[in-house]
Amino acid sequence: MARNTQVTADHNAPPVTQTLATFVATHPSKGWSDAVDHEAHRTFMNWLGCAVGAAHHEAADAALAAVNMLQPAPQASVLGRREKVDMASAALLNGITSHTFDFDDTHLKTIIHPAGPVASAVLAMAEHLGHSGRELIDALVIGIDVSCRVGNAMYPDHYDRGWHITGSTGTLGAAAACARLLKLDVQQTAMALGIAASQPIGMREQFGTMTKPFHPGGAARAGLVSALLASKGFTASPKALEAPRGMMQTISTKNTWDEITDELGQRFEISFNSYKPFACGIVIHPSIDACAQLRKQGVTPDQIERIELKVHSLVLELTGKKEPQDGLQAKFSVYHGCAAGLTFGYAAEDEFSDAVVTRPDMVALRRKVVATVDDSIDEASADVTAVLLDGRRVHVFVEHAIGSLQNPMTDAQLEAKFQGLSDPVLSAGRTRELINACWGVGDAAHVKALVALAVPGHP
Amino acid sequence: MARNTQVTADHNAPPVTQTLATFVATHPSKGWSDAVDHEAHRTFMNWLGCAVGAAHHEAADAALAAVNMLQPAPQASVLGRREKVDMASAALLNGITSHTFDFDDTHLKTIIHPAGPVASAVLAMAEHLGHSGRELIDALVIGIDVSCRVGNAMYPDHYDRGWHITGSTGTLGAAAACARLLKLDVQQTAMALGIAASQPIGMREQFGTMTKPFHPGGAARAGLVSALLASKGFTASPKALEAPRGMMQTISTKNTWDEITDELGQRFEISFNSYKPFACGIVIHPSIDACAQLRKQGVTPDQIERIELKVHSLVLELTGKKEPQDGLQAKFSVYHGCAAGLTFGYAAEDEFSDAVVTRPDMVALRRKVVATVDDSIDEASADVTAVLLDGRRVHVFVEHAIGSLQNPMTDAQLEAKFQGLSDPVLSAGRTRELINACWGVGDAAHVKALVALAVPGHP
Repeated sequence: MARNTQVTADHNAPPVTQTLATFVATHPSKGWSDAVDHEAHRTFMNWLGCAVGAAHHEAADAALAAVNMLQPAPQASVLGRREKVDMASAALLNGITSHTFDFDDTHLKTIIHPAGPVASAVLAMAEHLGHSGRELIDALVIGIDVSCRVGNAMYPDHYDRGWHITGSTGTLGAAAACARLLKLDVQQTAMALGIAASQPIGMREQFGTMTKPFHPGGAARAGLVSALLASKGFTASPKALEAPRGMMQTISTKNTWDEITDELGQRFEISFNSYKPFACGIVIHPSIDACAQLRKQGVTPDQIERIELKVHSLVLELTGKKEPQDGLQAKFSVYHGCAAGLTFGYAAEDEFSDAVVTRPDMVALRRKVVATVDDSIDEASADVTAVLLDGRRVHVFVEHAIGSLQNPMTDAQLEAKFQGLSDPVLSAGRTRELINACWGVGDAAHVKALVALAVPGHP
Repeated sequence: MARNTQVTADHNAPPVTQTLATFVATHPSKGWSDAVDHEAHRTFMNWLGCAVGAAHHEAADAALAAVNMLQPAPQASVLGRREKVDMASAALLNGITSHTFDFDDTHLKTIIHPAGPVASAVLAMAEHLGHSGRELIDALVIGIDVSCRVGNAMYPDHYDRGWHITGSTGTLGAAAACARLLKLDVQQTAMALGIAASQPIGMREQFGTMTKPFHPGGAARAGLVSALLASKGFTASPKALEAPRGMMQTISTKNTWDEITDELGQRFEISFNSYKPFACGIVIHPSIDACAQLRKQGVTPDQIERIELKVHSLVLELTGKKEPQDGLQAKFSVYHGCAAGLTFGYAAEDEFSDAVVTRPDMVALRRKVVATVDDSIDEASADVTAVLLDGRRVHVFVEHAIGSLQNPMTDAQLEAKFQGLSDPVLSAGRTRELINACWGVGDAAHVKALVALAVPGHP
């Protein structure tokens, strides 16, 4: 029996399951600053745009076809589509689409994409059960706080050993948010967290496949069902997170319990959420931003002799693909990022499509980018000089790219991103209405009107 | 970036995902001995009896109430009840009930309970999609081979660190079995295993709560849905099990790849499945068996002066509760085990009920058991002497208890166990029909007739 002991077991962990359950069940509605509440609306809108934008991706088609094998009841909407499915399946599907473009939000301290699991679960449940927009936003803030705090405690060990931290902590966030929506008491909320704690989802090996976006979707579904089970009296360990053979010690050797409890109810992790302006890996963002600023200064592709790019060595190591052959390869090409920034002023999902990547003018412009390594430049910065055919040199240095915590996307930029994703799916007019509904969701008597706008047709 | 490497990563793992997918998709129907096929029928019947027996447990009621919130389509039966739900939810619910009494099968090498995840998934799918009994048994043998082989590779490290290995390997077994039922090709089967690989379920901290039986149920559900997703073109990593950041290296530091590949298709892990005759921890079984043998020799409780019990120290360490106050405590009382063995000749779920445990004659008989430690006796053995009021001494030594691999339950004993579980739920007549249907399921044109017998009423 001596074998059955964990070498690293911590038998003195604080009762974080109970602490989190108390927070989830009892924290006052809108018990935070206006700034936090506004960030919650930004998080919600950004998540919704990503989900609508990928509504007809082949991953969504495949997942919906599988769900339809279960003949689901039409309880909740698949965003950006006309189909309705049961609320647990809607959580799954919207969680998948919201992460399909890898364009959703990022909690930079843990690289968790927090909205996918939490917002997908709460919107599906709120639509079916008739909750108000205030209840939705409350659940979103609280659910994201739970998943990111657990992430803070386990990061980086947990991520390094192979877990896709978005899915593994997301079940807890979704369970917390749905427990809040269902108005579970402290004890039942602890059970919901406990049931969810047995279902961490996601391995990093799946990156590059449809199973990556399955992770937030699966987490949303698992969390929602965990809350339903708890509401009906299903039991779990009240120490499911922190016990020696509970979730956290089983899946992480690093567990900084204070990260869960410090300033709980005072500091909200959603405050530190960030939004990607560009649909690619974050190290390319400063270069795209710099080239977009050149464009703003009047530089056009036909004027270009060459573009001199100076970046940290890591940027070329990760994204040094000079001649990308398709959209996926272009996501690892800082050269394509520069060409897109100068040509379009941004680089959303469309600018990483095969069609754009193989355009002759894009191929030609990429070849005019001359990249050199300069490790005195931070990984999060880029130094770009456009050398024009008339001999002029135009220089831009980006210290913090747009979308970073130091230089967040403005509300107007988030709206533009949303439009780029949603216009082709819902029409521009409908998209405008939906944006307005997002900004006002915290005051909406119910969320159904907003959801109706996120479904095509029926003008 | 140096941080983002796994210290123990094995970059030379063999392609076990692909190897298993090929086996699952291409192994011939009934491509094994009659003995293996018979063991599959025994495994199926034992699982079915456990599920029927716990059909009305409060865990089943709570889980069904939660599932009903999703308004499931009536595709497949909840065993032992009249309700029907969608096939994924049926997999969940039957997986929960089959493990609720902790009375189901055990693969002793890994202590996996293999049928729960696999049989629950395949029967639900086979009922809805109209598969034959042969397809069901094929899928059961193959699915259990996948989960137990992966378990062999990861055990004991994976279990020791906190995973409930039944649920964590069960998703793979269920996915394999459902992929087989759906006749997926090798590539799609690899995707099904890959999707499942991101969803290991179950922490040991949950033991003693309803979430323990949730683990095989959740694994059954997750595996079934993984196969559905793969059948519709959903993708995953084709190296999802073995890659450095794939499932196995993420959740276990021990991965003996040979355990997966050696004699694959020749040796079948279901051959090593065992069935509990008694509804309690395995260390009490030899003592119960010994007292049941005393009863068979004509010894009755009213003749008893005292019972001298000699066992290994571990037995008293784990199950030394002399005066259990209720059924749950009695499961940790070798004294109650002896009293039940002598009184009833066995100790199923009813003999561990509060009503039986508190009976005055049981209390009195327990107090007549005098236990002493003798570490020369194996943990799996028991030495019992009944000292009678007339002065006679009747001695029984059990080397291997009934239910062990060395002394397996006979078919007749499995039937008696099944009757004890099923008679109160389905009636004795119906139970007899169901037993016959179980023995013949491998030849049944479809499984629906058998399932109909496992639902109460409608004579």
